[in-house]
Amino acid sequence: MSSHDIFLGETIGTAVLILLGGGVCAAVTLKRSKAKDAGWLAITFGWGFAVLTAAYLAGGVSGAHLNPAVTVGLAVEGGTKWSDVPLYLASQLLGAMIGAVLVWATYYGQFQAHLTDPEVIAAQPAEEGLVDQKAAPKAGPVLGVFSTGPEIRNVVQNLVTEVIATTVLVLAILTQGLNDGGNGLGTLGALITALVVVGIGLSLGGPTGYAINPVRDLGPRIVHALLPLPNKGGSDWSYAWIPVVGPLFGGALAACIFKLF
Amino acid sequence: MSSHDIFLGETIGTAVLILLGGGVCAAVTLKRSKAKDAGWLAITFGWGFAVLTAAYLAGGVSGAHLNPAVTVGLAVEGGTKWSDVPLYLASQLLGAMIGAVLVWATYYGQFQAHLTDPEVIAAQPAEEGLVDQKAAPKAGPVLGVFSTGPEIRNVVQNLVTEVIATTVLVLAILTQGLNDGGNGLGTLGALITALVVVGIGLSLGGPTGYAINPVRDLGPRIVHALLPLPNKGGSDWSYAWIPVVGPLFGGALAACIFKLF
Amino acid sequence: MSSHDIFLGETIGTAVLILLGGGVCAAVTLKRSKAKDAGWLAITFGWGFAVLTAAYLAGGVSGAHLNPAVTVGLAVEGGTKWSDVPLYLASQLLGAMIGAVLVWATYYGQFQAHLTDPEVIAAQPAEEGLVDQKAAPKAGPVLGVFSTGPEIRNVVQNLVTEVIATTVLVLAILTQGLNDGGNGLGTLGALITALVVVGIGLSLGGPTGYAINPVRDLGPRIVHALLPLPNKGGSDWSYAWIPVVGPLFGGALAACIFKLF
Amino acid sequence: MSSHDIFLGETIGTAVLILLGGGVCAAVTLKRSKAKDAGWLAITFGWGFAVLTAAYLAGGVSGAHLNPAVTVGLAVEGGTKWSDVPLYLASQLLGAMIGAVLVWATYYGQFQAHLTDPEVIAAQPAEEGLVDQKAAPKAGPVLGVFSTGPEIRNVVQNLVTEVIATTVLVLAILTQGLNDGGNGLGTLGALITALVVVGIGLSLGGPTGYAINPVRDLGPRIVHALLPLPNKGGSDWSYAWIPVVGPLFGGALAACIFKLF
Repeated sequence: MSSHDIFLGETIGTAVLILLGGGVCAAVTLKRSKAKDAGWLAITFGWGFAVLTAAYLAGGVSGAHLNPAVTVGLAVEGGTKWSDVPLYLASQLLGAMIGAVLVWATYYGQFQAHLTDPEVIAAQPAEEGLVDQKAAPKAGPVLGVFSTGPEIRNVVQNLVTEVIATTVLVLAILTQGLNDGGNGLGTLGALITALVVVGIGLSLGGPTGYAINPVRDLGPRIVHALLPLPNKGGSDWSYAWIPVVGPLFGGALAACIFKLF
Repeated sequence: MSSHDIFLGETIGTAVLILLGGGVCAAVTLKRSKAKDAGWLAITFGWGFAVLTAAYLAGGVSGAHLNPAVTVGLAVEGGTKWSDVPLYLASQLLGAMIGAVLVWATYYGQFQAHLTDPEVIAAQPAEEGLVDQKAAPKAGPVLGVFSTGPEIRNVVQNLVTEVIATTVLVLAILTQGLNDGGNGLGTLGALITALVVVGIGLSLGGPTGYAINPVRDLGPRIVHALLPLPNKGGSDWSYAWIPVVGPLFGGALAACIFKLF
Repeated sequence: MSSHDIFLGETIGTAVLILLGGGVCAAVTLKRSKAKDAGWLAITFGWGFAVLTAAYLAGGVSGAHLNPAVTVGLAVEGGTKWSDVPLYLASQLLGAMIGAVLVWATYYGQFQAHLTDPEVIAAQPAEEGLVDQKAAPKAGPVLGVFSTGPEIRNVVQNLVTEVIATTVLVLAILTQGLNDGGNGLGTLGALITALVVVGIGLSLGGPTGYAINPVRDLGPRIVHALLPLPNKGGSDWSYAWIPVVGPLFGGALAACIFKLF
Repeated sequence: MSSHDIFLGETIGTAVLILLGGGVCAAVTLKRSKAKDAGWLAITFGWGFAVLTAAYLAGGVSGAHLNPAVTVGLAVEGGTKWSDVPLYLASQLLGAMIGAVLVWATYYGQFQAHLTDPEVIAAQPAEEGLVDQKAAPKAGPVLGVFSTGPEIRNVVQNLVTEVIATTVLVLAILTQGLNDGGNGLGTLGALITALVVVGIGLSLGGPTGYAINPVRDLGPRIVHALLPLPNKGGSDWSYAWIPVVGPLFGGALAACIFKLF
């Protein structure tokens, strides 16, 4: 795979992933959206079909990692060269940031309406589900459209949850390489992976919102910090390392378990 | 592909697309429907499986474009001859109008019950989600069963949303041609496309109701204007050009991005 | 295909179809069920996966028609011999009755709890959605678990709805035979058909509850009339011919449209 | 298949099955979970995609039985050697217990928050759906996250429900072996099986919560008894034999029906 293909596939693929994944969070969260309050099932299917679309687009170009945890898992397992890893990771982070900006462009009016609504400003901590009062001031009222955050803030607990969820994801992706004769994401493989992601969201997403992908969390968080959103509040940087470290560790762990087979 | 096949496949395929897609809007919106208030997830899956059914039916006949944005995207990309484009577009518009009439036939009793209900007549603007008072008088109480409308009325914003959503759709369809060896909609390709459409609805449908298809909006809007529905209100013609121009531009843009690969 | 295979495949297949399809209606309707009030999306996916399971089981045995409208459509189209039609239909009716009895066995406790509940007995007509007072006395409080009924009772309207919905279904099944090289329900074909059925339910099920299959309605209605259920009320025989005649006509119409291609 | 492969595939596969399946029950049930009250559809899709993920992971290693009812059904049918059965069953039970512990690790904070909440402690019997007062004291407030329990407690009735539901499941899995040329769970087969499980949950899960797998119920119940959860209440051992015996009988019955074909 050429550097050109890796860069193009991962950047555009991750941009589409975050456009659709962040999009469903915006759709369900923001005022004046037709999908307001469509529920957890809408969010999990939205993210799953985001993976489907992005993996389908980038599968034949860059192998559609779209996630540093997958890249690291494949490098540990041997399917990806370590020398390609930095380019994969940089392209994914760039793509995630582009995707988050596209969510903002798509929902520009809704962001404005939401963030200037007196109710939203008043109800902020409760609306974000941060019932833990010590944690509440750290996260702004639309940070959840960009990045993940825990329902209960506890470093060890939050790390464990992200490690377990990412291990399941990367195990499934490594198995898929096996089932498809090692040639990356086939058409059916993209569908299975997408539904596995829906399943991880439904089953393991309750405590932390299932980042399971470092750039899915970090890229949009950087964009949240940079965008000129009114009353946007903080970007909760104290939590930001957990959805980076947990998934990377989970990806490597999955590769180790996979080698047992 | 013969003109006969293009005409037949696109007309019948688009009629089925709009029958099922408009049907789910009727099912969820109209009084005395068993699916009343079934929610956004029902609407997005309903449209997705409408695409599945229509693409499956027309795939082997006309290639199942069913959408001028797809036809234009394929023409720019080179997969469809420009000389066939007018026939594709005309057949799609005819099919969309037939589909909208079939929705009316299927839900005739529900349309009558809904449009003669005193509550509906009184609550009209709020029911249509048009909280912007200047916009409210333009759209009638069942226009949403036929055509799309924005939650926040803003030409640039609404165009941007439709362009982004359609670009994702047409990129996925162009990729599919690649994955299937260039032979149009295979069985699995129809399924993937359908789920991509569910994903676009969940993730990008919140601001404008995701037309992402000029005839999906224009055909039923013409039928809304012509049908003898009681108290039907206006057809919101001032908005009608946006879901035509936005998707056409998005389809061409997708073809340009696709050529980068 | 031998008579033995047709009998076995259609009887067991249709029994499983109605066990799962009637089962989801029981699950969502009856008191003391964990799925009580799970909504229209649950009903439509439940019926879709009922078709998937039954078609998958019977596909290799009898071709998995499971529906007289499909058998008639295939006979008109030429894929099934007219001399086999009576055996198909008899096996399907027998299977549908067995399936309805199995629903009763599975939900025996829930049927008893529901039908002896004072609230259910008092609220009967409203609970069944029969707001049309003239129609209300005709249908008992659990008839909806067995058979379909219209929200608005109108012979022409109800027939038109069933004809349109069944035409879409049988068109998709005839196309599938084409896509799969004419050898009946392949594995992917069963999945596509199942999702088409979910789509028909979401989009066209609102007015009549989408029988789209004569034995799906008639078989369980006979069982409803025979079972010793307390306070079960009438079986609404005056409506019973519509979900038989409408789907049969729709199946034949689909075969005629299909021959145009 | 070597003993090593059976042990590894069934243990890891069943652990993932219960991690995701138990996980969705935790996600929907426990306080401070983002998926709280996401509904029956979330639970049934969560279990279905748990089967998909686990079957996909273990399919090429051990054949992905993941369920003693499947193992017994395959042994009766002839696809699995009786001498391998004890190892399959032991590995499945071990995997189920590991999975239940992983659910606890993933949702540790939520378990603590839920079980120390005064409302939960007060409302216990109603919250668990055990409206039958005689049955109420037997089940603790989070037992439903681990094991199944009946809405209406009746030995014969509960057994019949589990037998019927498991028969449908194992029939579908045996058919799949046939469709895939006898080589176990192919990629598409895993998807079909997963959707059949969603269907069984939607249609037949209302009365007992569809164990349809002895270790899915017994393994987590043992873990519930052992874990140091505050205020956890009883493990309802008087019910525990039903979701073991019912599914085993259903699996054997399915093999007998399958041989008719």
